[in-house]
Amino acid sequence: MSAKIVTAAMLAIGDELLSGRTKDKNIGHLADLLTLSGIDLKEVRIVADEEDAIVEALNALRARYTYVFTSGGIGPTHDDITADAISKAFGLPCVHDAEAMRLLGEMYARRNMEFTEARQRMARMPQGARHIANPVSTAPGFIVENVYVMAGVPQVFQAMVDNVLPELQSGAKMLSRALPCPYGEGDIGTLLGAIQKAHPETSIGSYPKYDGQRFSTELVVRARDQAALDAAAEAILAMIRDIEAAKAAASNPGPEA
Amino acid sequence: MSAKIVTAAMLAIGDELLSGRTKDKNIGHLADLLTLSGIDLKEVRIVADEEDAIVEALNALRARYTYVFTSGGIGPTHDDITADAISKAFGLPCVHDAEAMRLLGEMYARRNMEFTEARQRMARMPQGARHIANPVSTAPGFIVENVYVMAGVPQVFQAMVDNVLPELQSGAKMLSRALPCPYGEGDIGTLLGAIQKAHPETSIGSYPKYDGQRFSTELVVRARDQAALDAAAEAILAMIRDIEAAKAAASNPGPEA
Repeated sequence: MSAKIVTAAMLAIGDELLSGRTKDKNIGHLADLLTLSGIDLKEVRIVADEEDAIVEALNALRARYTYVFTSGGIGPTHDDITADAISKAFGLPCVHDAEAMRLLGEMYARRNMEFTEARQRMARMPQGARHIANPVSTAPGFIVENVYVMAGVPQVFQAMVDNVLPELQSGAKMLSRALPCPYGEGDIGTLLGAIQKAHPETSIGSYPKYDGQRFSTELVVRARDQAALDAAAEAILAMIRDIEAAKAAASNPGPEA
Repeated sequence: MSAKIVTAAMLAIGDELLSGRTKDKNIGHLADLLTLSGIDLKEVRIVADEEDAIVEALNALRARYTYVFTSGGIGPTHDDITADAISKAFGLPCVHDAEAMRLLGEMYARRNMEFTEARQRMARMPQGARHIANPVSTAPGFIVENVYVMAGVPQVFQAMVDNVLPELQSGAKMLSRALPCPYGEGDIGTLLGAIQKAHPETSIGSYPKYDGQRFSTELVVRARDQAALDAAAEAILAMIRDIEAAKAAASNPGPEA
């Protein structure tokens, strides 16, 4: 079995994410959907509305991963500079796209609203870019090579993601199984490390939980092969049973003790 | 006035953030606190529990910004490799810190728990690193030069941030004023762009809101100088009044119309 690995990065753009004014909701949403599609999200960056920062991050990410998804900075105001920055990164002119002008012009005419210079900014994109349809508020996102440029408003971002997912190549799906474990990482760490070593085709994650009083863990086995996944999960369940038995023996010494 | 600019980056470490299993809560929290301290958070990266990825991101960020704050990967399990990666980035040996061993050893002794090999992993850090106290679960974070290494569990991360904030240099505080605006970005974009140009000492952000039916905006003026802030805010309020008046005139034509 040679599993095809498809990778992705996300670039979230916006001063408001870095000042704390807006708490990002798009990263987690995209992460969930890519995982379901068998695409490995490998890196996320958040940068300010600054052209140099956007260009540098985009060029680093698009060279390294199969896909790059961006959010934010494609609205009508002066601080929306994502279209310019993406154009610059690709060395393409940033133009008022004719089809986007038509879609937006018709929408504003229907709503008896003026198609202002600011609104026309939303039709700007690198020359030749393909559209990402925006069923929420019309102004399209766009695609250049392996870069998908989408809005920052979560409702619009989510609608655009739904529109691009069907065209992405999906990788061999990563299977996963979550195993709740009542013991803290300190109780299981060494044993779990040995299980990971014995099951190299899997990736075993340990996620501590803290309820204000004590730590427990959620153990997650991930693998692209079902048999490998099951074998590692069995080893973990056996480990939990062994710890339980050892603790029970320690607190209830038998008649010989 | 020469305002001192202090910058920061955050590096969030963990496969679980990229798979969507865990929705990050630490970035927004740190962003809020740094903004209050007058420290500009300029960039955030999220990377997997992979040594090369952590080392590369850390070295890029620590060269560029006044401070770097990391979250995640300092627990006791095999996938907690942050201490090793930070050590490698600085070219320092990763050792069991004597004071951390003492703190953890005493804590487990008090609780009648075994100080296992896995738990001893939590005492590992680059040789000579300073501690960040952890009042929640004892295992310390650590500081090497301008890099602050903290836990990923939000309660512990927040306690560690509280412990390091007092020692940071704070910059000239960024003042901000939020102005709710009932009009969408398309209505105000051109006028707002002109106001930004006329008030170059300020940074005017426009944050669209969408309630499922129509867009409005929150306009945020930021500046390090109060008079500059007030002047830009006044210009924005005048703009909103002018749009209101124009709309009222359009819908209620006077007797001459």
